[in-house]
Amino acid sequence: MIRSLYYAPGQPIRKDLPPKEFPKLIQNQKGLLWVDFVSEPPETSLPILQDFKFHPLAIDDALQETHIPKIDDWGEYLYIVLNYMNTEKNGDAWETEVDELDIFLGKNYIVTHHDHPIAAVDETWEACDRDARNVQGGADHLLYKIADNLIAGYMPAVEKIDDAIDLIEDQIFDRPEPRTLEKLFALKRVLLAMRRIILPQREVLNKLARDDYQVIDPKDRIFFRDIYDHLVRLHDINESLRDLVGGALDTYLSVVNNRMNEIMKTLTTITTLFMPMSFIVGFFGMNFFLPRSQDAVWELMQRPVFFGVLLALFITPVIMYWWMRRRTWI
Amino acid sequence: MIRSLYYAPGQPIRKDLPPKEFPKLIQNQKGLLWVDFVSEPPETSLPILQDFKFHPLAIDDALQETHIPKIDDWGEYLYIVLNYMNTEKNGDAWETEVDELDIFLGKNYIVTHHDHPIAAVDETWEACDRDARNVQGGADHLLYKIADNLIAGYMPAVEKIDDAIDLIEDQIFDRPEPRTLEKLFALKRVLLAMRRIILPQREVLNKLARDDYQVIDPKDRIFFRDIYDHLVRLHDINESLRDLVGGALDTYLSVVNNRMNEIMKTLTTITTLFMPMSFIVGFFGMNFFLPRSQDAVWELMQRPVFFGVLLALFITPVIMYWWMRRRTWI
Amino acid sequence: MIRSLYYAPGQPIRKDLPPKEFPKLIQNQKGLLWVDFVSEPPETSLPILQDFKFHPLAIDDALQETHIPKIDDWGEYLYIVLNYMNTEKNGDAWETEVDELDIFLGKNYIVTHHDHPIAAVDETWEACDRDARNVQGGADHLLYKIADNLIAGYMPAVEKIDDAIDLIEDQIFDRPEPRTLEKLFALKRVLLAMRRIILPQREVLNKLARDDYQVIDPKDRIFFRDIYDHLVRLHDINESLRDLVGGALDTYLSVVNNRMNEIMKTLTTITTLFMPMSFIVGFFGMNFFLPRSQDAVWELMQRPVFFGVLLALFITPVIMYWWMRRRTWI
Amino acid sequence: MIRSLYYAPGQPIRKDLPPKEFPKLIQNQKGLLWVDFVSEPPETSLPILQDFKFHPLAIDDALQETHIPKIDDWGEYLYIVLNYMNTEKNGDAWETEVDELDIFLGKNYIVTHHDHPIAAVDETWEACDRDARNVQGGADHLLYKIADNLIAGYMPAVEKIDDAIDLIEDQIFDRPEPRTLEKLFALKRVLLAMRRIILPQREVLNKLARDDYQVIDPKDRIFFRDIYDHLVRLHDINESLRDLVGGALDTYLSVVNNRMNEIMKTLTTITTLFMPMSFIVGFFGMNFFLPRSQDAVWELMQRPVFFGVLLALFITPVIMYWWMRRRTWI
Amino acid sequence: MIRSLYYAPGQPIRKDLPPKEFPKLIQNQKGLLWVDFVSEPPETSLPILQDFKFHPLAIDDALQETHIPKIDDWGEYLYIVLNYMNTEKNGDAWETEVDELDIFLGKNYIVTHHDHPIAAVDETWEACDRDARNVQGGADHLLYKIADNLIAGYMPAVEKIDDAIDLIEDQIFDRPEPRTLEKLFALKRVLLAMRRIILPQREVLNKLARDDYQVIDPKDRIFFRDIYDHLVRLHDINESLRDLVGGALDTYLSVVNNRMNEIMKTLTTITTLFMPMSFIVGFFGMNFFLPRSQDAVWELMQRPVFFGVLLALFITPVIMYWWMRRRTWI
Repeated sequence: MIRSLYYAPGQPIRKDLPPKEFPKLIQNQKGLLWVDFVSEPPETSLPILQDFKFHPLAIDDALQETHIPKIDDWGEYLYIVLNYMNTEKNGDAWETEVDELDIFLGKNYIVTHHDHPIAAVDETWEACDRDARNVQGGADHLLYKIADNLIAGYMPAVEKIDDAIDLIEDQIFDRPEPRTLEKLFALKRVLLAMRRIILPQREVLNKLARDDYQVIDPKDRIFFRDIYDHLVRLHDINESLRDLVGGALDTYLSVVNNRMNEIMKTLTTITTLFMPMSFIVGFFGMNFFLPRSQDAVWELMQRPVFFGVLLALFITPVIMYWWMRRRTWI
Repeated sequence: MIRSLYYAPGQPIRKDLPPKEFPKLIQNQKGLLWVDFVSEPPETSLPILQDFKFHPLAIDDALQETHIPKIDDWGEYLYIVLNYMNTEKNGDAWETEVDELDIFLGKNYIVTHHDHPIAAVDETWEACDRDARNVQGGADHLLYKIADNLIAGYMPAVEKIDDAIDLIEDQIFDRPEPRTLEKLFALKRVLLAMRRIILPQREVLNKLARDDYQVIDPKDRIFFRDIYDHLVRLHDINESLRDLVGGALDTYLSVVNNRMNEIMKTLTTITTLFMPMSFIVGFFGMNFFLPRSQDAVWELMQRPVFFGVLLALFITPVIMYWWMRRRTWI
Repeated sequence: MIRSLYYAPGQPIRKDLPPKEFPKLIQNQKGLLWVDFVSEPPETSLPILQDFKFHPLAIDDALQETHIPKIDDWGEYLYIVLNYMNTEKNGDAWETEVDELDIFLGKNYIVTHHDHPIAAVDETWEACDRDARNVQGGADHLLYKIADNLIAGYMPAVEKIDDAIDLIEDQIFDRPEPRTLEKLFALKRVLLAMRRIILPQREVLNKLARDDYQVIDPKDRIFFRDIYDHLVRLHDINESLRDLVGGALDTYLSVVNNRMNEIMKTLTTITTLFMPMSFIVGFFGMNFFLPRSQDAVWELMQRPVFFGVLLALFITPVIMYWWMRRRTWI
Repeated sequence: MIRSLYYAPGQPIRKDLPPKEFPKLIQNQKGLLWVDFVSEPPETSLPILQDFKFHPLAIDDALQETHIPKIDDWGEYLYIVLNYMNTEKNGDAWETEVDELDIFLGKNYIVTHHDHPIAAVDETWEACDRDARNVQGGADHLLYKIADNLIAGYMPAVEKIDDAIDLIEDQIFDRPEPRTLEKLFALKRVLLAMRRIILPQREVLNKLARDDYQVIDPKDRIFFRDIYDHLVRLHDINESLRDLVGGALDTYLSVVNNRMNEIMKTLTTITTLFMPMSFIVGFFGMNFFLPRSQDAVWELMQRPVFFGVLLALFITPVIMYWWMRRRTWI
Repeated sequence: MIRSLYYAPGQPIRKDLPPKEFPKLIQNQKGLLWVDFVSEPPETSLPILQDFKFHPLAIDDALQETHIPKIDDWGEYLYIVLNYMNTEKNGDAWETEVDELDIFLGKNYIVTHHDHPIAAVDETWEACDRDARNVQGGADHLLYKIADNLIAGYMPAVEKIDDAIDLIEDQIFDRPEPRTLEKLFALKRVLLAMRRIILPQREVLNKLARDDYQVIDPKDRIFFRDIYDHLVRLHDINESLRDLVGGALDTYLSVVNNRMNEIMKTLTTITTLFMPMSFIVGFFGMNFFLPRSQDAVWELMQRPVFFGVLLALFITPVIMYWWMRRRTWI
């Protein structure tokens, strides 16, 4: 889908203009043209973009390739790549998709190109459609609005991740299982993916806020600086969340390890208690004691020996318990 | 709550002036106005801040958003964000809250905005109220006093953490339990949170001490340099404490691991001793020996065999002990 | 093999010229000479390269030594080293070979030297042979084509590695074995090797895109910038893949560890259940009970004791089960 | 204690001058005054330092606070903080104390302030006292001598640590115990503390060697460069020692782990050998075999069964041994 | 030993000149003097070096102290410290010795000082002795030759280490033992030591190749650039080798861990199989069954019970095997 929107001072906003008019419209230095390519195949986008006289390499980048966020200064226009992230919690798994928004920013036009519909672009589009004041700030201000909406879109994902970490932290002490670990690894991956797109975007916004570009009014740089501050904070939250995930991983390992130690202690305690006692009863189960059973003296001796054995069986665990206590095992 | 304080040379300090007078008062280049917004809802703060002619983005930052420490130079005024940290030890848990102090610093006024009462601001307020000399240094000197009190507020938290680490280190050798580990992880998190606000604040103070700002008297930069040095040292102490926590974690793991090894050694020692002995007594408990009990020859042979078995039962643990000794297990 | 290709405006492309003509041909500022040394022994390459008047150190580098990617500016010509990587999946093992492409780039000639045939060079050669337009852009454009093909050659390897990681991730939960770990370590090594050649190549392309070289037309820098962006993205994908491998390693360890814990739990459960029960039956196997078998009272008492023992043998596992359940072992 | 030393060309060195004379003495541009405050309370130091007209913040730093090494340029004088370290080996524990030496360096005076006696300062003092040539180089040369002695004082500590590591490495293979680990952690902490004071001191010396200060003769910078080189080397040795400690930690863990494996192997070997054999003898201890003992056929059969059992008991360990051998356990 | 070599254009090379002539010889701007101190005590070296008018600090550095590689520019001469490494494989241990080569480089002389004979210096010496062309390039070219030989000397050590890693990798899968681990730690240490001297030497060569020194002909910088490239590559190989060692360590741990798991599985399998079976035979070994042996009904019942027990003993391991199989233990 290709949609377009044209504003000239004193005139109502025109929409969905024929692509052939674009080159003529951008001659009017006071107007503002926004062309948005949504999931459009390269075949139809290519000739329209060529009419704008963009450099073939820039068009190539926009149409075919996935880039990390960057900004290319082509003099009369800027070619900007921004990323956005869709994070869906699907049961325990997190489905994270990173997509790309290509922007050509001229003095009096903005061309956006994306393969999937983007909520942030749609919102800005509707705002412009509703109220002409949104386009009166010029092309660079429109870029600011789109970027601002795009960055604002990270917050819900961040909050969902925050909640997920809270939930997992409770589970860890309750019943740590490998699935808990899997969830943590999944969160770690989402946070890493987010970090990887926030950092270069921060750099892009920093350039927009500091560098001198022909198509950006120096007075508007302060707005990009504001988005830059948002991204600095997002990066900071991302780091905190990664710390939390790291802490949860450490806690998980220590809880599981502690459980293991308890299990081993039990194994050792039981073995240490019953092995000597089993030996004692095994000793008195030897057949050497039987044949002489007719022997009267033997018969007489048997009773005290029997009670001696009982005593030994009673004392052994007491001694063992005292010994393990002293070593602070129990 | 909105409180204000106005000093003009030769006049007594006036307090709690009506907000409508603010714009007029700051016309007087020789006076000094301090307005402090404490837990004030945005609805009432907004119009007052707009009267100061602050940039909408700066007001937005102050009213709605949580930022990491930063400094924005708006020419006639600076917008500064500082953080402070409340660390409460609640049993074993540490409750750490990071809050924000927004400051607008003009040539002859200072506007502070915070959502919660801050001890450092209250102290400075009372000092100004008590003694006019505290406000005669100008707005930048007042900023120094507030920042100095704010940074000084980290020391008690640092000392509490130091004591907690000492306590835990003693516990580790005594009776290491998972709760000890939890305490260490909690301390680590507090220290990380502290580090994360000290570092950007250090950067803010560094800028105040080095950069050329319209509203800061170059002669007063040395005071900000002094706070900067405090923050450098705080960061250094923070690193030392994190090293100590890291060392305590390593020690905990090595103590627990060592305990585990001792337990496994005991298990193996007991098993190694009693399994062969149990086999021997089990062997002589087989029923093959019984039927021939009437056999006289057998009867005669039984006694030496019995003593042989006793000897074997006595020698086995001695050999085992010697063998384990040689392998330095015991 | 030495092959050469010469283009002069208005003339057909000439191929496989005698090396002796090279010095004369490069006198013509409007022509373009490409000489390609493929697996040629130094003895034959040396005199030809010397005819180009290259610095002995540069020739030395090209003929004898393996270098990491770099660019040396010798004024009238550039000496560039690029690497390429052949990754063969040989069963579970990955055979990775890193080779070197040495390039001398002059204003109107390009000399390439490599020890093994390179697909990227052959492709470019054939394209030039097929269509003269490919050589009309000048020597620097030819360099761009070669480098572009070379970098494009990394993508299939990257995809093969991606598939391999997917496969391993499935195996980990199914049946984790040490061979799985070996495969992961092998992938990690391949990715590290790739990273080690991508990073310096990125630096070389960055220099070509930014620095001012006598033999590179400033207008063509944008093309090297495009390859640079490819390398930035390749490096980014490489990092993601390394994250995936790292995550798979962590998952493997946690799965194996969890299996171990289950095994130890089973061992402890079985031991804890049967050791006390074995002791009980061992106790009643002692020979003290036998001699009195003629005794009628004993005979009478035996029956309730027998059923008491049966009851004890039945109750013991129930209590043990309840106790282990409470400790959330089972 | 306050001690002072004054040298003017052509005059003998005067010692312990009354503090009131200091301001007058430093008027003489050709003289050299050294005032040394040793463990002096702030009450007495403060007025003397104020007589030197030092900035209140600098005096504050010197009297009250502990700083990390730094250098402040106050124009007519430098305020320098250096650290020194006392490392005492107390049995197995290392007592490390980091203290501070504050220095005010003017064109023709040097003021040193420290809370504890410092050997390096005392040495320099005695050298000056003994031989006037030591003070003829000017205040900056005196600073060099003090700093040189201070840095030289690290070497004995470094050597003590080196010896301790050697000793521990021998113990690790001999008899690894948790105390060995404690010693290693203690050494690690000492080395980290040393690193933390060497790094900023290196920076201070680097500044003295490179930057342009009013009170330091450019010709004398080479001496500070020499101390800087010492610190670079000390840092290098420190890194090597930390590597050694890290290696010893790894070795310890591998030795302990290996011991654990051997213990587990023994446990498994013993259990694997004796459990099946115990079962066999237990099987033939069942009472089913008894009643039929009067049966003649049974009697006849018993002998071959008995020898069969003996054979089984003999063959079982042989098979087990062969099986474990093949799996390279033994 | 002090040896010297003097070349003046048009004259034969003179050798072993009396040290007293050195100052006079270096007056001749066209000659070239090389003085080499090999294992010479400071007492004899000092006066000769002083005759060259070197700065006392530089002489001090050369004679007494061990430095990390560095370069000091003293205007008329450079003081350069290079390191070399002797790696001897002594059985399994690696003996690594790092020594120092101090060089004073003037316009027309070079003074080398080392405590042990260095092959690289001897080689260059012999080449100069054999063929005067080797000294005609000037002092800086001679420095290049020495440094080139020195750096070339690292390759054999690198190859020895490479072979050792290959050997260890084979052993790891075959028969992993703690000694294998020791060898890996030893290799790691050697590689770290090598890295620590390569990095600062790279920096020294980088300075020689880029900076403007009075005593180095700008045209000769390209040679130092060549050595710099060698060091970059050496550093790269070193990193690869350290990766290999790290990978081998990981593999070792995973192989040992896997073996441990197999051992524990065997222990658990054996215990899980035989404990229930031993309980069954123990149950039927209780003496309750004996007294009633005269009872005919009992006699009759005994046979089916006996076969029932046999069946139970047969079925138990089958069930256990199936259960362990399902949990993929076996």
